[in-house]
This record gives sequence, C-alpha cells and structure tokens, in this order.
Amino acid sequence: MKIIVDVMGGDNAPLETVKGAFWATKEFPDTEFILIGDKQQIEEIAKENEFDLGRVEIVHADEVITMEDNPVLVVRGKQSSSMSVGLRMLAEGQGDAFVSTGNTGALFTGANLIVRKLKGVLRPGIGAIIPFENPVLLMDTGANVTVTEENLEQFGVMGAAYMRKMYGIENPRVGLLNNGSEECKGTELQQAAYKRLMANPDINFVGNIEGNSAAFGTCDVLVTDGFTGNIFLKSVEGLGKLLLGKIKGMFKSTLLTKLAALCMLKQVKVLKKQFDSSEHGGAPILGINKPVIKAHGSSNAKAFKNAIRQAIKCANSGMNEEIAAAAQSYADRRKAERDLAKQEKNKA
Amino acid sequence: MKIIVDVMGGDNAPLETVKGAFWATKEFPDTEFILIGDKQQIEEIAKENEFDLGRVEIVHADEVITMEDNPVLVVRGKQSSSMSVGLRMLAEGQGDAFVSTGNTGALFTGANLIVRKLKGVLRPGIGAIIPFENPVLLMDTGANVTVTEENLEQFGVMGAAYMRKMYGIENPRVGLLNNGSEECKGTELQQAAYKRLMANPDINFVGNIEGNSAAFGTCDVLVTDGFTGNIFLKSVEGLGKLLLGKIKGMFKSTLLTKLAALCMLKQVKVLKKQFDSSEHGGAPILGINKPVIKAHGSSNAKAFKNAIRQAIKCANSGMNEEIAAAAQSYADRRKAERDLAKQEKNKA
Repeated sequence: MKIIVDVMGGDNAPLETVKGAFWATKEFPDTEFILIGDKQQIEEIAKENEFDLGRVEIVHADEVITMEDNPVLVVRGKQSSSMSVGLRMLAEGQGDAFVSTGNTGALFTGANLIVRKLKGVLRPGIGAIIPFENPVLLMDTGANVTVTEENLEQFGVMGAAYMRKMYGIENPRVGLLNNGSEECKGTELQQAAYKRLMANPDINFVGNIEGNSAAFGTCDVLVTDGFTGNIFLKSVEGLGKLLLGKIKGMFKSTLLTKLAALCMLKQVKVLKKQFDSSEHGGAPILGINKPVIKAHGSSNAKAFKNAIRQAIKCANSGMNEEIAAAAQSYADRRKAERDLAKQEKNKA
Repeated sequence: MKIIVDVMGGDNAPLETVKGAFWATKEFPDTEFILIGDKQQIEEIAKENEFDLGRVEIVHADEVITMEDNPVLVVRGKQSSSMSVGLRMLAEGQGDAFVSTGNTGALFTGANLIVRKLKGVLRPGIGAIIPFENPVLLMDTGANVTVTEENLEQFGVMGAAYMRKMYGIENPRVGLLNNGSEECKGTELQQAAYKRLMANPDINFVGNIEGNSAAFGTCDVLVTDGFTGNIFLKSVEGLGKLLLGKIKGMFKSTLLTKLAALCMLKQVKVLKKQFDSSEHGGAPILGINKPVIKAHGSSNAKAFKNAIRQAIKCANSGMNEEIAAAAQSYADRRKAERDLAKQEKNKA
C-alpha cells in the first residue's frame, strides 16, 4: 500500500501537511508514503521536527496550484505542480491513493482528466461527511453545479458504497435532499431523481429528506446537486461555528461561568469531538479510478493525518471496487432499459 | 388598525392561538382584533382563561384547512374555512393585516388569489428571519420552487423594504445566496440574477454570499429561489435544534454539570432568546396587497402573539407602501429597458 501525498497548497502548507504526513507514517508503519512538494522545505521541516526521512520518498515539485488558480491549470500550464505530478503518479500506478489540501476545483478536474473516472460512472462527485446525530455522507457538495437525475441516482450508489465500506453500514439508507417529504416535491430534477432512486435495486432509498430531519439520523447518504449541496454543507458549517463560538463566549463571560466551564471540561471535549468534521478526514472524490481525498484547505496536522488515514482505508477497503461493480450494474440496467424501449418502439 | 386572526389550523390551535391573540389584545390596547374560527371553542377557551370577549370580534368559520389539504382548497372547496373567510375579509378591506398558523401552501395560494399581489410584483415570496449574528431575512423560503432572475431581483427589493421598515436598517445589505463569492458562481440563474441585482439602483447589493458567511453579519437580506431557501432554512433549523439538544444533554449529564448549569442560567437564557426565531414573529408573505403573516405551525401562545405583533408593525410601518413604490419603480425601469431595446432593434 502506497499513498501519494501532496504537501503543498492549502492554508497551512507545507508545515502542517508535512507534520501530518509524518504522523501518518508513525500511525501506519506498514504503509509507504510519497510526499510531493518543495524538497528543500520538506527536508527542513523534517529536520526541525526530527522526522525520520527514511520512512518517506520525496518527489520534488517546482510549482503549486493556488486557491485562486483556474482549475484547468492542473492539466494545462502547471503540469510540474505538486498536485499535477501526484495525480500523474497515481494514474501511472505508482501509488494507491492521493491526498491533497489544494484547490478543490483543480483537484476535481485533475482527478477526472488525469486519473480518469471509473467505467460506467457518468459524473464523479465530491462527498463530505457531516457529523450529525450519525455521520451523513452528503453528495455532491459542489463539483457538479448542474446535474441530471441519473447523476443523482449514481451519487446515491457511490455514496452507499462509501458508507458500506468506510463505516461498516451494511445497507446504507439513501435519502434525496428535498423541500418536503412527498414524492411530488422539488423541481422536475428531484421528481425524476426520486423515481430513479426508488426503482434502483442496489439502493436502500428512504425517500425525500428535508434539511431539518437530516440532522436526526434519518439517512446515511444524502443525495443532491452540487449547488444545493454546497449551500447545505456551508450553512451547517456556518451555523455550527456561530453557535459553538457563542457557547465559548458564554463560558468565558464571568468568573462563575469560567468555573462552570471547568466542571464541564470532559463533556465539552466529547461534544467538540463529535461535531469536529476533520475527525472524519477530508472529502472523498468518488467515481475516480483510484481514491482521491480532498483535505480541507485549513487542515492542521491532525486533520491532514486523518485525511491520509481515510485514503489508506479507502484503498484497503475495496470501496472503489464496489463503486466500479455498482457502476457496471447500473450500465447493464440502463442498457436493458434502452433495449426494452427499442423493442417496444419496433412493436408499435 | 384592525388585525384579522385565523385561530384554527397549526399544531396547537385553537388553544394556543386564542391565548396568543388575547395576549395581543392586552399588549396592543389601541388595536382591534377579529378572531376567525370555531365560535364555541373560542368562547370556551376565553371563559376558561378569563379573557375579555369584549375586546374581540368573533367570526365563526365551520371548516379548517388542514396541513394535509391541497392548497387550492382555500379558493375551491373550503371557502367557509377560517383561512378562506379571513383572507376574503382582508381583501374586502375589513382589516389591515392577516395572521395564520395554517397550511403554508394554502395561505400563499389564498394570499395570491384572494388578496392579490401588489401591482408590479411578478411573484410574491415568503420571507423568514434567521437569527444569525444579525437578523437576516431569507427570501424565498419555499413558495417559488423555480424562479427567474427577475423574481430574485424583486425578492431583493421586497426584502430590503421589509428590513428597512421593520428593523430600521436604513440601507439593508442584499446578498445573493451562492456556492462561491465570485460573480461567475452558481447556475445560469444566479449568474443572471447577480447582474440584475448589481444594476438595480434601489438595492444595496453586496454580491454573492456563501452559506457559511451568511451567519456572520455579511448581509441583511439573503436572496434565493424557494427550493434552495427551503433547504437552507431547514438545515439551519435542524442543526440548531441538534446542537442545542446536545448542549442541554451536556448540562444534564452529571451532578457537577447540573451545578455548572445553575451558574450559567442567565447566559443560557440570553443565548436561547437570541437564537429563538419565534422572537421575530412568523414568516411574512411579501408582495401581497395587504400584509399576510404565516406563523409557524408549531407556534405556542407567545410565538403566535409575536406574529400578531409583527402583523401590526407591518401594517403600521408603511412596509407595503414601500414595496409598492419599489415595484412601480421596477416596472418603470423594465419598461425603459424594453423601449431602449426596441429603439436599438429599429435602428439596426
């Protein structure tokens, strides 16, 4: 098992990413690691922090794709960037999974154009685990602003495979994010997707899920277009941050409340851990030939290490093989549907 | 000033709604009230709670539109329902504003078809105040699942009028809910709406607002289509409920934490009040000839009283006149745009 790690890009790179990568080498002694980035900087950070350079292979990359860069630069213009080099190595079979904190659009574009999508997958998507009452995989979270009902159906299939293999949920409940629970709700897109998801024998479809009930254990996978998914993900992120900040302020307001906070240290820690999305790693790009993980741009060493752990698990769990099989079954079923339609047309 | 109050429909009607209405009669001694609903039930509740029946006019209505009813029943089939009777009285000028906890779809349909929209308004919408760092009016929240860029522009105009008149914000900042801050973000709809909002001289447009930054005081009005708005509103509602429940559980977990909770009673109360959306009343339906307020279906007496207070303020503040003037200015500008386009076409 070999993991390719892009240590450039992101808000805290390369210090936190290199740290996180070395922590991963300690946590996973049987895994090999390739770090891609500015060799001199990596070596300096390793030296300062007494990391064992013998545990990693360093591949030097001259350039970095910044958050402001146009995503297509990953394939046209910045081919010697750490992200581009890493994705090419993944595509060539030099590693089993890829992790990066860099530009999301570029990573998604590069994964599609360099590593390529799995056979039968119409559109890969970016998932994200939301730490609600239970972990919920939201998909898509922004890669595909406009989608078809078939894309939504496949997001459900891929998301279910992810939750099965990564969280051990035997029969993940797939819900469609909608503005009401009735079948007729939503735009034409949701109405058509509802029918497809309902008819798909590979999915345990639990129907439309509203924004409020999603938080309370109603599904394991929440399917939506990238626009709505992005709004949902960020709104939850924003309110969470606001509320936790207010609670922090509340604890700090007087001497008495500070004392109260001390009495609750343990409980606060448990709560914080439960709602810390970085505990779940980064955002998986699903539907690509090999696992590609997007770590949050603001990842610290621990969050980045968790994203690497997630990549190892993705590569080990047979998650991608499961998605590939589901995509094949999907393609077969669609072919049968089309053949049937053709036959009926010929009859008529 | 006379407020028409539908006391039927909703989860806690008529007990809580009648209570709330009578509380409103005490808080607003100069306002007249018409209560519409089951006369016998209203009189019984009044008697049990020692409410002064002399302060209100009761109009008996035989029927109730339930949450499950098809919205069109308000105009076709259940014309003797409390909602239908109330809306007709509002349309006929027997009152200045209308409040109901009933079926949202029916109330919106009835407001449109019975009370009618303001001249120049393309599509009325349902707003909702979200208690973020500052109160943010989200619009639309579900009435218009699919919209045009012009609808979104008008939502901005109407929302700004609401925040100016109801919250005293002189120049409300209007943001467009989007999946990124750059002008190019979103679907074609958001891209087109961005241009229109930017060009509109009546709006203080602050650009695209992402789901996470909306919580932190970046705008006063957040414009979106009804589908996305509904998802946004409910996701915020769901996470808020989940987090506040977890915090409650945290305080209750041991004797020590219960003691800690006692030390923080005051702060918890302040926080709870800040994030209690019912403090802001109900959801205003904007763009209708007279103010119509949708109180939350689960309103208790206090929440319902707050919705009545909001209706009084809407009717008193000149909010609707401001929307009417803005709609007129909008219509004039559109006419000028069309005339110009025609002239240019003739020249060519």
